[in-house]
Amino acid sequence: MSFFKKHIEAMDAYVPGEQPVTLAGVVKLNQNENPYPPSPKALAALREFDEASLRLYPDPMVARFRRAAAELLGVGEDWILPGDGSDDLIIMIARAAAGPGRAAAYPYPTFPFYFTQGQIENARCLRVPCPEDFSLPLEALAKADAAVTFVASPNSPTGATATPDRLEWLAGKLKGLLVIDEAYVDFADQHAAALATRRDNVIVLRSLSKGYSLAGLRLGFGLAPPRLMEGLVKTKAIYNVGPLPAAVGAAALADQEYHSRCVELIRAQRQRLERELAARGFRVYPSGGNFLMVTVPGGDGRAAFEALKARGVLVRYFNEDRLRDTLRITVGSQPENDALLAAIDAWRG
Amino acid sequence: MSFFKKHIEAMDAYVPGEQPVTLAGVVKLNQNENPYPPSPKALAALREFDEASLRLYPDPMVARFRRAAAELLGVGEDWILPGDGSDDLIIMIARAAAGPGRAAAYPYPTFPFYFTQGQIENARCLRVPCPEDFSLPLEALAKADAAVTFVASPNSPTGATATPDRLEWLAGKLKGLLVIDEAYVDFADQHAAALATRRDNVIVLRSLSKGYSLAGLRLGFGLAPPRLMEGLVKTKAIYNVGPLPAAVGAAALADQEYHSRCVELIRAQRQRLERELAARGFRVYPSGGNFLMVTVPGGDGRAAFEALKARGVLVRYFNEDRLRDTLRITVGSQPENDALLAAIDAWRG
Repeated sequence: MSFFKKHIEAMDAYVPGEQPVTLAGVVKLNQNENPYPPSPKALAALREFDEASLRLYPDPMVARFRRAAAELLGVGEDWILPGDGSDDLIIMIARAAAGPGRAAAYPYPTFPFYFTQGQIENARCLRVPCPEDFSLPLEALAKADAAVTFVASPNSPTGATATPDRLEWLAGKLKGLLVIDEAYVDFADQHAAALATRRDNVIVLRSLSKGYSLAGLRLGFGLAPPRLMEGLVKTKAIYNVGPLPAAVGAAALADQEYHSRCVELIRAQRQRLERELAARGFRVYPSGGNFLMVTVPGGDGRAAFEALKARGVLVRYFNEDRLRDTLRITVGSQPENDALLAAIDAWRG
Repeated sequence: MSFFKKHIEAMDAYVPGEQPVTLAGVVKLNQNENPYPPSPKALAALREFDEASLRLYPDPMVARFRRAAAELLGVGEDWILPGDGSDDLIIMIARAAAGPGRAAAYPYPTFPFYFTQGQIENARCLRVPCPEDFSLPLEALAKADAAVTFVASPNSPTGATATPDRLEWLAGKLKGLLVIDEAYVDFADQHAAALATRRDNVIVLRSLSKGYSLAGLRLGFGLAPPRLMEGLVKTKAIYNVGPLPAAVGAAALADQEYHSRCVELIRAQRQRLERELAARGFRVYPSGGNFLMVTVPGGDGRAAFEALKARGVLVRYFNEDRLRDTLRITVGSQPENDALLAAIDAWRG
């Protein structure tokens, strides 16, 4: 007997994005982190955190944060399920809904963790290619009609975003669950949270990692009808979110003014980069996220990646079928984007 | 099509221990929390935490904490896998190793989360009864020979502890994995960490929740041969532990002097409670943990639970087959234990 399941032995581990050994002198545009610090109110919540509560087990349902998220989205608290990052929620969903005879579908390219989770559950994994323009293949996902369909909107690494109308159309076609991963939605024109309240099969995922500059806090949440929450709760760790992230996250969500200001700065820089990169011969795909996918002039993504890295700018290169001529570039602060453009100019001469 | 797997729909959710709405006036001896605050050095690490790192994705392998745990146990860093509480590790193990044709075995009574995880994985769940004295049924677990065998040592709620020799005997008998859950081992006479280095099928779990007074931090870790870690890493969330728990946890592990002092106080109080409860007609089971299981005089556990609750002392009652005449009582601080004994005396007249 092997110690692990056969399909676990056979699979590869998920490979996270590269992290530089030191940040000194590196312009880090490879993991879609927000260039601005978290809300001062979130940091105040961290400093004012009641240390005495660390001794005790937390509230398993994280009421403090649940309330803040419910208020933000205008739903009841029982519509919200907090997670140790939104990857925790993707795991809960896969465990509850994907498996033998219950396929998982997702576009390609997208966040590869959906595939990882489908594999772990030994589900058939239906990788549905995006068309040439990298828009989201909703019709093909409808045809695949999997038990669980994952759609990141905005999608990474492409930036493609589906309108709520089109996502609602997809939800209506599917007999299984539709998971709309809105990790990047803070930077988009529209969001689809209302679908969770209108459809019985929709789970919307949110993250505080990008829009709220809290990737290190590990906090995300799901929004879904209470009937679906009953199933997901069964697969969650008992105390998946502690009082520290709950307090800091609740304060971050409550500070919408700061959030909007950061988002506007990033959206303005995204527009600027779109223009500047296009002017330098890059094909820029429309993005609803805090990053841009580009086809590099000359078509050698790895060479571009290495050239920028040599000049102190770290972007993301995916050594995969359809992505070898592209890069994914996080939209940084104005000085970071200046450095990016300068590095490109130095490279391209 | 149901939205969830049939066996998920059919199962009950894990029910965590009761949490009082307010702690004011409540002596809380129901969740095996440590009565002392976390190490001052751990709290200093929280106060000195570099807020700037919250903006960034953490190290997926949590090197900072891994190093601290590896140093404590005298192993290489690749023998350590941190988790969002040790329940996170139990989930990783179940996902990697339990499933159809791969049974999960565990004693009864024990931490019911092993059963929950076996159910989620649709594994045959082999519940192996403890003998009348509630010692750990290692021979019967060996006979069950499951793909994954969970043994909490010390066990909860019974307090029973197996010697490293007996656990090594069990590891040698099993063809599958032996998970030794040492969540409570800080309070025991011996631990079995060395088995992970001597046997290829042993995973030892540790938690900072009890011994280090950090139940709210959500931090535990697994110790196992790198060959097993390769499998477990596949089923972990990408960034399961953030830099905040990593920094606080590393500082807590490094402060062994404080840890030993708290543990000694609790062990002394455990001895005192054993004596005092026996003198009051309770049957007290030998415990290696920071709690005692007792059979209550008169045999009505629920009545005892209610009587103590009415007097402001919250202990744990399990409404289950073999536990209805028992209580599980956390060993508190001296004043908390005074309050417990006073409440018992008031109740028993």
